This record gives sequence, structure tokens and C-alpha cells, in this order.
Amino acid sequence: MPIDISGWKHIFKIDPDRYLSDEHLDLLCESGTDAVMVGGSSGVTFDNTVDLLSRVRRYEVPCLLEISESDAIVPGFDAYFVPVVLNTEDGQWITGQQQQAVREFGATMDWDLIVPEAYVILNKHSTAAKVTGATEVRDEKDLIAYARLADRLFRLPILYLEYSGTFGNMELVRKASAVLQQARLFYGGGIDGPDRAREAAEAAHTVIVGNVIYDDIDKALSTVRAVKG
Amino acid sequence: MPIDISGWKHIFKIDPDRYLSDEHLDLLCESGTDAVMVGGSSGVTFDNTVDLLSRVRRYEVPCLLEISESDAIVPGFDAYFVPVVLNTEDGQWITGQQQQAVREFGATMDWDLIVPEAYVILNKHSTAAKVTGATEVRDEKDLIAYARLADRLFRLPILYLEYSGTFGNMELVRKASAVLQQARLFYGGGIDGPDRAREAAEAAHTVIVGNVIYDDIDKALSTVRAVKG
Repeated sequence: MPIDISGWKHIFKIDPDRYLSDEHLDLLCESGTDAVMVGGSSGVTFDNTVDLLSRVRRYEVPCLLEISESDAIVPGFDAYFVPVVLNTEDGQWITGQQQQAVREFGATMDWDLIVPEAYVILNKHSTAAKVTGATEVRDEKDLIAYARLADRLFRLPILYLEYSGTFGNMELVRKASAVLQQARLFYGGGIDGPDRAREAAEAAHTVIVGNVIYDDIDKALSTVRAVKG
Repeated sequence: MPIDISGWKHIFKIDPDRYLSDEHLDLLCESGTDAVMVGGSSGVTFDNTVDLLSRVRRYEVPCLLEISESDAIVPGFDAYFVPVVLNTEDGQWITGQQQQAVREFGATMDWDLIVPEAYVILNKHSTAAKVTGATEVRDEKDLIAYARLADRLFRLPILYLEYSGTFGNMELVRKASAVLQQARLFYGGGIDGPDRAREAAEAAHTVIVGNVIYDDIDKALSTVRAVKG
């Protein structure tokens, strides 16, 4: 039975390659967030992923791995989120690495735990955009087309709009959300406190809070209350 | 209500850019095949697609368009099959052209008629492989991984193994078929008569018969009986 993401409004995303004290991790896991997602764009290893999993596992909060390195696929998570980048000309980020991981683990993996995410990378200056060779989303029509591609052609369960480090255009996010028939819209990028969290939560189904965890734990925690009431 | 492909064993694929007499078209459409698919890899235009549709429309057989050119998307088909190439490094063939077509037609299209096909191109010397920059499928593990990628990660309804001009390795096809949980396996390539049609039909759910239509209409017709009866 796949994990039920339909009620999720808030996720904390923590990076195995960044230091997080036990005290702060405890605050995050007990905050009332809907899930803790483990993932990062560089320096993710099997060892630091195992370490973070074992620390989050003491809590009841669902713990997800967002797969970036096939070397760092650690058993024991509640679900495995697999990014599929829609706006790139580099097939490695759409099907290539995914096929390699399936080649390695496909025979033994529990597919009920696998959740593909249709990524659209919207900050063209971000590391994520550079690494994946993301193509620019030029206008609203472009974004709506990606939303429909994810939702209707591929019927993926998640459309993840990744503004990575900047706060996005919420009118655009709302418009993308409005065309979805079955996918959930995940929003990530620039949520640095309760106001932006609230604003993003009005446009998206689920907001992802990452960097501010490492900059200001109190502000990070305040995003949960802002989003979940 | 999406078209039901689950009982299909045989499809004739006809090319708008190749000459087919009314008499031969009549024989194909009345042959007992499960569907007629219109599609080609070059020279497909709106005009020659409209023309072929209007000729096939006189018959009861389901008529599908396999989209290759967004300029040649003609209304009035029973379904629109959208190829998504899994084994390429060129994102244009996985999500790029698809997004462009959705950008243009997404607001008005009837999504119930849209059927995505996960393509794996297996003849590396074929035009299809060259045009799409298809990467080589090196071994059985590679093919099985593509099959699982299509069936389990993307949950696409069709895995299309395209040997394009050559007759494939039926043991490999059978093994790919065996790992599918929901997708239907379409096989295309080198079916030049009843023996190969029968052999392919034992390995795949559905066989696609194309070129032999233009070379030897009687042999083409005999593939229907070989597969279905």
C-alpha cells in the first residue's frame, strides 16, 4: 500500500551533508510536520544517509528518502521519492539514472514504497538547474504545459515546483495547481518564515521547508504552525 | 473513457507518407486486426494524415494516431498514442516535444483519448535510433530495467519494444513481458509473415505489423490469422 500523501501540507527537508544537532532534529520531528524528507544535491552518501535515518527513526513522523545518488539508497525509509526532471534536455535526469537504479535494485525493491516526482526547476541560476541542465520555463503557458504533462500524460502523483533558494511566483504556482486533476503540487524554495509558508500553502498542496532549518530553527518551526493552522 | 487496449493482439501500422491502394486498405481494415495505427517517422503531414484518417474512417476498425509531428495532430481519431522514448540521452524525445505539443493543444485536448507509450528502441542501426539518439540496450538486465521503469515507476500503459526493420530476440521480449505488472507489451519489427507473427505473439501481448503491408499484402493479411485465430 503506497504511502498516502494526500493530506500532507508541510514537509521538512533535511540534508545528510549538513550538520543538525539532536536538539534541533527533535524539534523538527515533534513539530507536527507531516513528513521529514532526507535529501540533498551534493555530498549525499550511504553513511550519512543511514546516520540521519537512524536519528529520525526514533520519532513517529514519516521519514522519506528523496533519491539523488543510487549509492545512497538506504533500506528502512517509509517511502522513496524519485525525482524525474521534466524541463531538461539531458535524458540522464528523466530516465537515465532512474533506469540505472532500477537495473541495480529493481528485482528486490518494494515498488509500493516508490513515489515518482515530476520536477520542474524554476530558478535557472540554482545549482539544481545547472547540474541537471534545466531549460528555462519561459512563461505561464510553458509551466501549465509541464503541469499537464506530469498530471495527465505521465499521471505522476506529484508535481514538484522547485524554486531552489528563491521564493517563487505564487500566481504561477496557483495557476499550475489549478490545472491538476490528480497530482499533488509540492512547492519548494525560499520559505524563510511563517508569512511565505502561508502564502505558498495557499497556492500549493504541500510546502517543503529546507534551508531555513539551518539558518533559524525557530523560524523553521513557525512554518508548521503557519501552514497547518 | 480511455480506449481498451487489453484485448488487442494485432495492429496494422500504416504510413501516411507511403502509397496504399483503396483495395489494400480495404483488405487491412476488414482483416480482423484489432486496430489500425497511423504513423511514420518521416514525411508525416496534417494533409496526408487527414487523408488516411478519412479513408480508414469508413470502416469499423479502431483508428489510432501515433503522434510524431505536432503539426500533424488531426482530430477525429479514436485515440492518440504518444511515444516517450526511454533509452535516449536526448530529453527532446522523452518530455521535450511532448511538452511543446501539450503547450499548444493541452487546454482543448480530450485527455481520455491520450495513451502514452514507453518506447525502447532496440535496433541501434535503425532510423528511429539515429533520429532519437537512442542509447544501446546492452543486455537483458538493461531491458528488464527499462521494462520496470515503464511499468512500475512511470506506470505507463504500454511498453513498446521497437526493433524497427529487424526481427527481435524473442527470448528477451518474453523476459521483459514477464516482469510487467500492468503495462501491455507491444512488439514491432521484422514481422514479415505468419511464422514470425506467431512467434512474436507468443512473447508480446500485441504485435505491430508495418512494412510487409507495402511489400506483400497477402503475407501481411496472413499475420492476422496467425496471431488471432
